[in-house]
Amino acid sequence: MVRVTVPATTANIGPGFDCLGIALSLYNEIEAEEIEKGLLIEVEGRDKEEIETNEGNLIYQSMLKTFDRIGWHPKGLRIKQYNRIPVSRGLGSSAACIVGGIMVANKLKNSPLSKEEMLRLAVEIEGHPDNVTPALFGGVVVSCQDQGETNYVRFPVHEALKFIVAIPEVQLSTKASRGALPEFVPFKDAVLNVGKSSLLVAALMSGELEKISCSLKDRLHQPYRISLIDSLKNIFQEAEKQEINQLFLSGAGPSIVYLTWNQEKEEKEKIFYRIIEGMPEEWNIVTLKGDNEGVK
Amino acid sequence: MVRVTVPATTANIGPGFDCLGIALSLYNEIEAEEIEKGLLIEVEGRDKEEIETNEGNLIYQSMLKTFDRIGWHPKGLRIKQYNRIPVSRGLGSSAACIVGGIMVANKLKNSPLSKEEMLRLAVEIEGHPDNVTPALFGGVVVSCQDQGETNYVRFPVHEALKFIVAIPEVQLSTKASRGALPEFVPFKDAVLNVGKSSLLVAALMSGELEKISCSLKDRLHQPYRISLIDSLKNIFQEAEKQEINQLFLSGAGPSIVYLTWNQEKEEKEKIFYRIIEGMPEEWNIVTLKGDNEGVK
Repeated sequence: MVRVTVPATTANIGPGFDCLGIALSLYNEIEAEEIEKGLLIEVEGRDKEEIETNEGNLIYQSMLKTFDRIGWHPKGLRIKQYNRIPVSRGLGSSAACIVGGIMVANKLKNSPLSKEEMLRLAVEIEGHPDNVTPALFGGVVVSCQDQGETNYVRFPVHEALKFIVAIPEVQLSTKASRGALPEFVPFKDAVLNVGKSSLLVAALMSGELEKISCSLKDRLHQPYRISLIDSLKNIFQEAEKQEINQLFLSGAGPSIVYLTWNQEKEEKEKIFYRIIEGMPEEWNIVTLKGDNEGVK
Repeated sequence: MVRVTVPATTANIGPGFDCLGIALSLYNEIEAEEIEKGLLIEVEGRDKEEIETNEGNLIYQSMLKTFDRIGWHPKGLRIKQYNRIPVSRGLGSSAACIVGGIMVANKLKNSPLSKEEMLRLAVEIEGHPDNVTPALFGGVVVSCQDQGETNYVRFPVHEALKFIVAIPEVQLSTKASRGALPEFVPFKDAVLNVGKSSLLVAALMSGELEKISCSLKDRLHQPYRISLIDSLKNIFQEAEKQEINQLFLSGAGPSIVYLTWNQEKEEKEKIFYRIIEGMPEEWNIVTLKGDNEGVK
């Protein structure tokens, strides 16, 4: 039997649309073993009623593709998924299933695939590298897909960073969230995002955390996506009024991350909690740190 | 008498439109001293016939604004400019005059302005931070202007990097080059630039130089600007055919930089030289390194 833990991930991080991702200290656990025949999938934990326990299960699907790549298949399979990453909330639950599934499958046959080969397979399954790369390697990952190849630079998440994640009960499909994006954007919006994303990478990498506050502005995706859910619009507007600037939509949403790093900001944290509590739907707030190890 | 040297700078660096700049090992020298009365400006060196020697001189103008800021004016002024940075070629000649002028003026009165105050003044005069920030601090600078404030992160240029700069005799005004830019761009072009610029910053900062090759693509400004001058179009097309990917327009052009870092690429360098030599106009090629000190 093999067992892996795989982190949640947050992608985009404001301006870094489709290129920035960070692994978080919230983990799914996956156990798998070869059995004589058949397929047994057991799911426990958060959102378990939404996770398929048949051949449609994403961990199983990812394991299958890994076995195809390796050129070996087990006779039968027992999978146990202990789920902590909320499903369809923009926290990389599918990336965690894909990366976790590839990793357990690879381990079942003594790890013939390198991490780079696992990345290639994960990107093929997920369709983009934003979440699978940090889920695999941990840390902050800047990745860019070009002509089928994923190029990335990875570096550690600063230990002072604190990710206050507000997760609504309502879900948002990535497809709906992608559909809200425009075909053309004003040139100056594009330029703003290029500058902010570049500065954000430099701030995260150099540890000049105070430069993060002015780097999280985005005009490429958040304004379009936020309009899909009234509460998101209200939260961002209210936060701006209260001068809480380090807010971003996690991935395609609907979860929101308030990124902070020092004690002085505790007053602001309380204000953020109150804003979230004022929303009509149920929201959960969890405070996470960065994860620097990735799947293991 | 005070004397400063100030580096040339290259901005944009492919995808990093309006936010990335690097200081280069090509320097203007400026001497200034207070005299009893009047204004004496002497210019020597490259493009000297294009540089004003009256009150319109940009170094003098920048010195004047610095004196205003300091609240002190000399009785008279003698300025000597030894010019090596070609004028209006996209290598930060105006930023060098502005930063050099501010620095000599500040030094004439025992440096009351800090480097941050000099930066603020330089950005006010130049209108944007891309060139003045690396001219002032040296190194690679990621900068972003927002509501009148310039935020930046600076880090050293990797010592292995080599900037092969091709400079045409023909000039291109920043104004004409800015005028070629569109008002709207396809969403996917904006996303490409965000990803490439972010990856480029991460590659330059981490020293993973091999990641630079895939990071220099740009769809926001170069395609529009290159079409202004036939030779530029031909050079970029020819370079692409020969798989020379590390080419970018320096600033608003028309100079072109071929960024390289190891000996294996010498064959490619020869090809680049041949492409440039095949152009109908006269081009000069100079090989520069990064500058990590800035004005001094």
